[in-house]
Amino acid sequence: MATLNTWRLALDIKQWVVTAAEAVKLHLHDDLKVNTKSGRNDLVTNIDKTTEQYLVQKIRAQYPEAKIVGEEGFGDQVEDLTGLVFFVDPIDGTMNFVKARENFAIMIGAYLDGKGIVGVILDVMKDELFWGGPEFGVYKNNLPLPKPKNITLSEGLLGMSGPLLVHDVKHVAAAVTASSGARIFGSAGIEFTKVIQGFENGYVSKLMPWDFAAGKVMAETLGLKVTDIDGEPLSMLSSKIVLIGTERTHAQILALQ
Amino acid sequence: MATLNTWRLALDIKQWVVTAAEAVKLHLHDDLKVNTKSGRNDLVTNIDKTTEQYLVQKIRAQYPEAKIVGEEGFGDQVEDLTGLVFFVDPIDGTMNFVKARENFAIMIGAYLDGKGIVGVILDVMKDELFWGGPEFGVYKNNLPLPKPKNITLSEGLLGMSGPLLVHDVKHVAAAVTASSGARIFGSAGIEFTKVIQGFENGYVSKLMPWDFAAGKVMAETLGLKVTDIDGEPLSMLSSKIVLIGTERTHAQILALQ
Repeated sequence: MATLNTWRLALDIKQWVVTAAEAVKLHLHDDLKVNTKSGRNDLVTNIDKTTEQYLVQKIRAQYPEAKIVGEEGFGDQVEDLTGLVFFVDPIDGTMNFVKARENFAIMIGAYLDGKGIVGVILDVMKDELFWGGPEFGVYKNNLPLPKPKNITLSEGLLGMSGPLLVHDVKHVAAAVTASSGARIFGSAGIEFTKVIQGFENGYVSKLMPWDFAAGKVMAETLGLKVTDIDGEPLSMLSSKIVLIGTERTHAQILALQ
Repeated sequence: MATLNTWRLALDIKQWVVTAAEAVKLHLHDDLKVNTKSGRNDLVTNIDKTTEQYLVQKIRAQYPEAKIVGEEGFGDQVEDLTGLVFFVDPIDGTMNFVKARENFAIMIGAYLDGKGIVGVILDVMKDELFWGGPEFGVYKNNLPLPKPKNITLSEGLLGMSGPLLVHDVKHVAAAVTASSGARIFGSAGIEFTKVIQGFENGYVSKLMPWDFAAGKVMAETLGLKVTDIDGEPLSMLSSKIVLIGTERTHAQILALQ
């Protein structure tokens, strides 16, 4: 993998994601086959599955040595992060997709020996493609995104997970009260796009690696902090309560723990 | 007012709102003059004020006998609802406007002798114009919206106000837990557009008349219930915790009180 061209990799991922989105949009008003996974509000549809199958097939064809962590199980059983690893979330915000056909994202994060190199999040219905990495900076479609201002908790909107706020896990209610207000969009990918644009100063949610892999690459490239809620580094192989924020907001929310 | 042409009235309001939005967009990246009103998270900008001034001027020119209830105070001191009354919210979701330049709405509701006849909500950044009334039905741009399915609380996403959820006012946490999840968009106008499209099965928030006047007309036209959180009719001249929902969701949330 010493010869990996990350610019080519970024272009490949963008093409796959945009092509996958075109297929999703073609079937947008079909009847969905909806099933539950871990609970009644953890959904998967036939579209999640076919989208992941498509993305996995493209990755395997172009990068046959890579490993794939996919939400819907069409990837590999990945137990270590050596080499090139793709994290695939075919439809992030499946509940929004099912109920509202908006505010869902297709996401791929590519990591080399555990280090994020490319992140891509497509807000499908807004046609907004967020992509980037430490070598390129971060872009919204074709325009570079500036680094968000290092605002404090009180100066911005705080993206939240509904369940964490309802049960006030990890003092998130106090964080919301100190902020300019909570927002709940119901998709980690969509929330990452808000934070990297500076629309929110932070976001807290319990996430799986495919939920945060792409966003983490872009957020860190823009100088944002991404850790677990206790300030520890995230594992790319397990679920954590994730805290993303400007440096100041991140520190203020950590201080509540 | 016996000769009021409500079709003409709807066209007038749509034209004013869309024209006002064009002016807002022209100034979208200007530095805003932001001031607080009732508290640090209750904002008003120069754009709220100039937009309301424009809308009030158009109303007064075309409907000189009408009364105007305007959020920013350029209307009248309205103490009764006889005749034609316009409720104007020049920028609903000012916090979103200031922080994110998205998810804000321009809204006008027109009432005749206390009865809603025209409601218009423009999601400015999505260019989605929701308008309608009991004489016309409800439209998104040029296409009619079907009546939302009468789904139960557990079958849909519940739009929430952040402060009500953080403080669990009126058992909203239990309502959220029984639903498919909470969403917080931070604008009553935007939340109304979600409910009338069937993206959410209900919405709960403490609102002023200009926050709900337009949405109430459209919601009721589509068979949704709009009352206060205890099931009582709303006053068009005072603030209440407002509950909007499908018949079933509305009844289930009332049963929690």
